[in-house]
Amino acid sequence: MSIVLSRDSQVRVMENTVTNAEKYFGQFCSLLAAYTRKTARLRDKADQLVKQLTDFANTENPEMRATMRNFAEDLAKVQDYRQAEVERLETKVVSPLKLYGVHIKQTRAEIKKFKQVQKNEIKQLEKLEKLRQKSPSDRRMISQAETSVQRASVDASRTTHQLEEMIDTFQKQKLKDLQKIFSDFVTIEMVFHAKAVEVYSSAFQILESYDLERDLEDFRAQMNGVYGHYDARPLKDTMPSPAVPWALTGQNAQTTIQNQRRDEESTEHSAEEDPVEDLRGQGQAPQP
Amino acid sequence: MSIVLSRDSQVRVMENTVTNAEKYFGQFCSLLAAYTRKTARLRDKADQLVKQLTDFANTENPEMRATMRNFAEDLAKVQDYRQAEVERLETKVVSPLKLYGVHIKQTRAEIKKFKQVQKNEIKQLEKLEKLRQKSPSDRRMISQAETSVQRASVDASRTTHQLEEMIDTFQKQKLKDLQKIFSDFVTIEMVFHAKAVEVYSSAFQILESYDLERDLEDFRAQMNGVYGHYDARPLKDTMPSPAVPWALTGQNAQTTIQNQRRDEESTEHSAEEDPVEDLRGQGQAPQP
Repeated sequence: MSIVLSRDSQVRVMENTVTNAEKYFGQFCSLLAAYTRKTARLRDKADQLVKQLTDFANTENPEMRATMRNFAEDLAKVQDYRQAEVERLETKVVSPLKLYGVHIKQTRAEIKKFKQVQKNEIKQLEKLEKLRQKSPSDRRMISQAETSVQRASVDASRTTHQLEEMIDTFQKQKLKDLQKIFSDFVTIEMVFHAKAVEVYSSAFQILESYDLERDLEDFRAQMNGVYGHYDARPLKDTMPSPAVPWALTGQNAQTTIQNQRRDEESTEHSAEEDPVEDLRGQGQAPQP
Repeated sequence: MSIVLSRDSQVRVMENTVTNAEKYFGQFCSLLAAYTRKTARLRDKADQLVKQLTDFANTENPEMRATMRNFAEDLAKVQDYRQAEVERLETKVVSPLKLYGVHIKQTRAEIKKFKQVQKNEIKQLEKLEKLRQKSPSDRRMISQAETSVQRASVDASRTTHQLEEMIDTFQKQKLKDLQKIFSDFVTIEMVFHAKAVEVYSSAFQILESYDLERDLEDFRAQMNGVYGHYDARPLKDTMPSPAVPWALTGQNAQTTIQNQRRDEESTEHSAEEDPVEDLRGQGQAPQP
């Protein structure tokens, strides 16, 4: 009877292992899915900020306009990386955790099957015991019952072995997957944060190099309607006021050239090797 | 009359400047407040994950238990930095933007005052014009009206000058503040992301150094109820099963020593110089 008891406690350890895995993997899954969703919401808010910064840039004088546009571009780049982060979290963290639900249900079904085999063994043992007490002389019946017990024991022993192997595989896979999933989580986060540091460093330079005095000169010229001095540059369709009373003469050609250079610069910039490619290269779809 | 028209268009430029600032600073403020809130939500989700990881760790064998606990600690550290990020965004980005509302209202009131002075000048000019047409010979009345015009012009001119100075200061402050607020935003984000990279690098090492084989040996020993081999370590009140049928003899003393060492290690670890201090040193309250 002691081997039956030992099997019983073994099953309890197995059941605990599976129940625990079910509970915690389920919670990890829903929490990491929520974490991913909240990250996507953060990206949405920052995208809205990018849009407002761009709109605002278009209402400002050239100096602040260029600064805000470039800053907004960098902020948008961080959101592209955040989008890649969201997609990679879904693919490499949330999805594998979801698959666990199925895996656990299969294991649970196997344990249930084994418990029935085990019950049958106990039933046969009890039957034999009763017979021995009630009809100790009925050799034929006792012998029959002994055969049934033996058959049930062989069954239970074989199933136990199978179950042991299965639970060993389950545990090994569980531990491996945990290590893999959280390593992937950490890697995805690390890549995102590292890229963000890189882009924000550039954004910081952009804001640092903003020339307030030059901008104020433009503003003062605009306020006074005077374009007598060298640095002032008129706005091109960017100020909502229809009543700005300056005369666009002489200065015009120079400004157009300046604007062309600015446009060329910004084209060159966007044609540069895009660092988001790194992530896309790893099977990530680009942000739509 | 041309100076009056010029003043009129000047006022429109001023009004546009203030209206624009009101519109965009308002939007920046609400978007950045929302961005900060979403960041706080992300921190909340990660905090919940930390809790679940710690609970889960307590149900696992020593190897995975140590790995998950250390990983959870690192994840919690990132959330401390995120909390510092949230507090700094509120103090250095959202609050200054909120203050702008007040500043803009004051400026708008000044412009309104000036428009009344300007209206009065036009009224006096029109009165004089009428008089000249109706009673060109009434020298006394015309002279009186001329004095009124002159007085109103002096008023308007003085107020214009004041307003010009005020709007110049307003614009200068606006541009400076924009640069400052967004530089602060970038710095806060950059510090957070840099710290996150640092902590996640450590977390990655923790997960990498997890010893799966050692963990499996413990699990197999537990499944078989056998503690014959050297490496196996019984669990201490961490498995919910009350029915695990092993005998705690002989091995006990050694295991207790091992656990003590682990505890000491973890105490040493948390007593280490806390990198969150860097941020707290900058006037940031620690996470409650």
